[in-house]
Amino acid sequence: MSEAPERGFPEAEFASRTERAQKRMADQGLAGLLLLTEPEVRYFSGFHTLFWQSPTRPWFLFVPAEGKPIAVIPEIGAALMRKTWIEDIRTWSAPAPEDDGLSLLTEILAPIARGGGAIGVLKGHETSLRMPLGHYERLLAGLPGLKVADATGLVRALRMVKSEAEIAKLAHICAIGSRTFAEVPQLAYEGQPLEDLFRAFRREALAKGADDIPYLVGGADQGGYHDVISPPSRRPLTAGDIVMLDTGATWDGYFCDFDRNFAVGRADDPSRRAYDTLWRATEAGIAAVRPGMTCRNHFQVMRRVIAEMDDQGGDVGRLGHGLGMQLTEWPSIADFDETVIEENMVLTLEPSLGYGNGRIMVHEENIVVRADGVHLLSKRAARELPVI
Amino acid sequence: MSEAPERGFPEAEFASRTERAQKRMADQGLAGLLLLTEPEVRYFSGFHTLFWQSPTRPWFLFVPAEGKPIAVIPEIGAALMRKTWIEDIRTWSAPAPEDDGLSLLTEILAPIARGGGAIGVLKGHETSLRMPLGHYERLLAGLPGLKVADATGLVRALRMVKSEAEIAKLAHICAIGSRTFAEVPQLAYEGQPLEDLFRAFRREALAKGADDIPYLVGGADQGGYHDVISPPSRRPLTAGDIVMLDTGATWDGYFCDFDRNFAVGRADDPSRRAYDTLWRATEAGIAAVRPGMTCRNHFQVMRRVIAEMDDQGGDVGRLGHGLGMQLTEWPSIADFDETVIEENMVLTLEPSLGYGNGRIMVHEENIVVRADGVHLLSKRAARELPVI
Repeated sequence: MSEAPERGFPEAEFASRTERAQKRMADQGLAGLLLLTEPEVRYFSGFHTLFWQSPTRPWFLFVPAEGKPIAVIPEIGAALMRKTWIEDIRTWSAPAPEDDGLSLLTEILAPIARGGGAIGVLKGHETSLRMPLGHYERLLAGLPGLKVADATGLVRALRMVKSEAEIAKLAHICAIGSRTFAEVPQLAYEGQPLEDLFRAFRREALAKGADDIPYLVGGADQGGYHDVISPPSRRPLTAGDIVMLDTGATWDGYFCDFDRNFAVGRADDPSRRAYDTLWRATEAGIAAVRPGMTCRNHFQVMRRVIAEMDDQGGDVGRLGHGLGMQLTEWPSIADFDETVIEENMVLTLEPSLGYGNGRIMVHEENIVVRADGVHLLSKRAARELPVI
Repeated sequence: MSEAPERGFPEAEFASRTERAQKRMADQGLAGLLLLTEPEVRYFSGFHTLFWQSPTRPWFLFVPAEGKPIAVIPEIGAALMRKTWIEDIRTWSAPAPEDDGLSLLTEILAPIARGGGAIGVLKGHETSLRMPLGHYERLLAGLPGLKVADATGLVRALRMVKSEAEIAKLAHICAIGSRTFAEVPQLAYEGQPLEDLFRAFRREALAKGADDIPYLVGGADQGGYHDVISPPSRRPLTAGDIVMLDTGATWDGYFCDFDRNFAVGRADDPSRRAYDTLWRATEAGIAAVRPGMTCRNHFQVMRRVIAEMDDQGGDVGRLGHGLGMQLTEWPSIADFDETVIEENMVLTLEPSLGYGNGRIMVHEENIVVRADGVHLLSKRAARELPVI
């Protein structure tokens, strides 16, 4: 097993993230950022816990115009937050249905509201509001004069480009994912319920060093699978099946996200052809990416190869996406996304196509964009559809 | 291994849930419910996928005043949704940053808005808005006249009381959790980094039949641990440690949520006393619960026992909570919660206390409330702090 990187980040990384945010906030006239979601709170504080699984308690981080962020959190998180670089930690005894942090937030925001100032909140694409909507409305009603701007672009611009320490974590979990997929021919057998293969895959990923496997989907069916988001069934693997596993495993809070396809016993010709087409689409995508290219152009490069075979628009919406603390992040390798690809973005290339009677196939690799082109984080899929 | 129940639910269960919601909607003058969150969409449709891990795409389910719910979802989910009892499935090619389902929702809601009608949305405690806030604001701006009420109470009342099929799933995953905890004395050893014990626990839970272990936290330290939401460190287990693991494992989308405490090599007296106090607090809680009791009264029963020892208010906010499709659900076994406990509620009892220099201890059991009292779903913790 390869050496794991250090867990966590040095304080300088959080200071740098905060300074860069504050520079953009100054440019946009924002007196603060109010962050509610796990990746954003973690990005600026280092606060890392699975406790977000519980929907009961909201957690808030306020990034002021100057100085360190301020944590406004349930008392149960104070001990862990004190281990981070955050100094100003304000807590309440949660859950408290009537005032779950609202008066603490109001204290911070009232001076800004009185001055007619603006704060940023994430309101844009791929975000959500992780606090009760009714509480959010009540918070604003109590702060007349406060302007609320959408800070999605600001946060997105920072988070899309990864630091070397983030890339090391992503490379580590991608290597664990690759070593796990390499075991699939040993883990899978004819007659095995797909559910059992999934369970064996999860156990293997943990044995190879993953912290968790929050995401594992896939499919298996004769001559090709039909959807890619189902939980596994008890249907046994059968000769002639095409089986696909797509995993998001994590290490220290960073995801890999890629899949592998296998044929059970024998591979039919249409599936071989689909595999070959997608392999070449990925290859074209890998060869084409350079800093300065737009996501749209990158999409078109892969789309041209897929078009050789796709019979139904391959409507999974996009051919790749950003990767980091979330399984899927901005940008999208899609026709609608004109984001300019930058050095140190970590992306998935995920071409897919539809073929013959509702079958689909998806390929996926994880890459980091460097000045001289793409470095693969996942071990490249086999050139031809592997038969197991 | 005990026989697993059937996966999924018969269509009659979804029909019954929908009818009961519609009856309450009629009482409250609601022309529909707009649901955005995974448990709610699953509760009324049966749509079950890990794809919610990806924050990119919103998913909508609209429960009309009469008839089956309507799914408004990304095309990538259509094949899976067609396997549920839902018939009216409207899709768009997501992601689509400018109109991610908004015009499809507007079509459904416009007639209600024109009539000055009201819909329900989850806006209350323990809920969140799983769509971009900016999109939600835009949706409402395009529907002048539409009233939006908070439907948290309505949904909460339904989801808090479990069906027999739900209880069977919860019993199954609790049994898996109990069998996994029974292996901890074999899995743990002096000198083992806590991280490795966590990994071994996850692998064991999978081997015992869990689908996933989305939640596993805990702590270990000399004479007691200090916080209960941290990820595990590389610190090796040492004689004199008290180690606690708290797991939320899942089967078919339902959670167990309980913990176990162990002493490594030897147990110090304060930790033995804390354990004894919490065991008796739990026992008092188990003995007291009956349909008709309020959560507040139940809280007070356990609190009285804890008060024998707690030195710092044991501020984890509550002494238990609902359990189901989420790790933590309504109600709260807390001083603020006047919910009347009903037959077939599934609850955790989770007394905790602080003792000596910032140490805390937490106990937890999972129960179902029946007409004649409590049935345990987790295997009752050992009477005395186990030494491993």
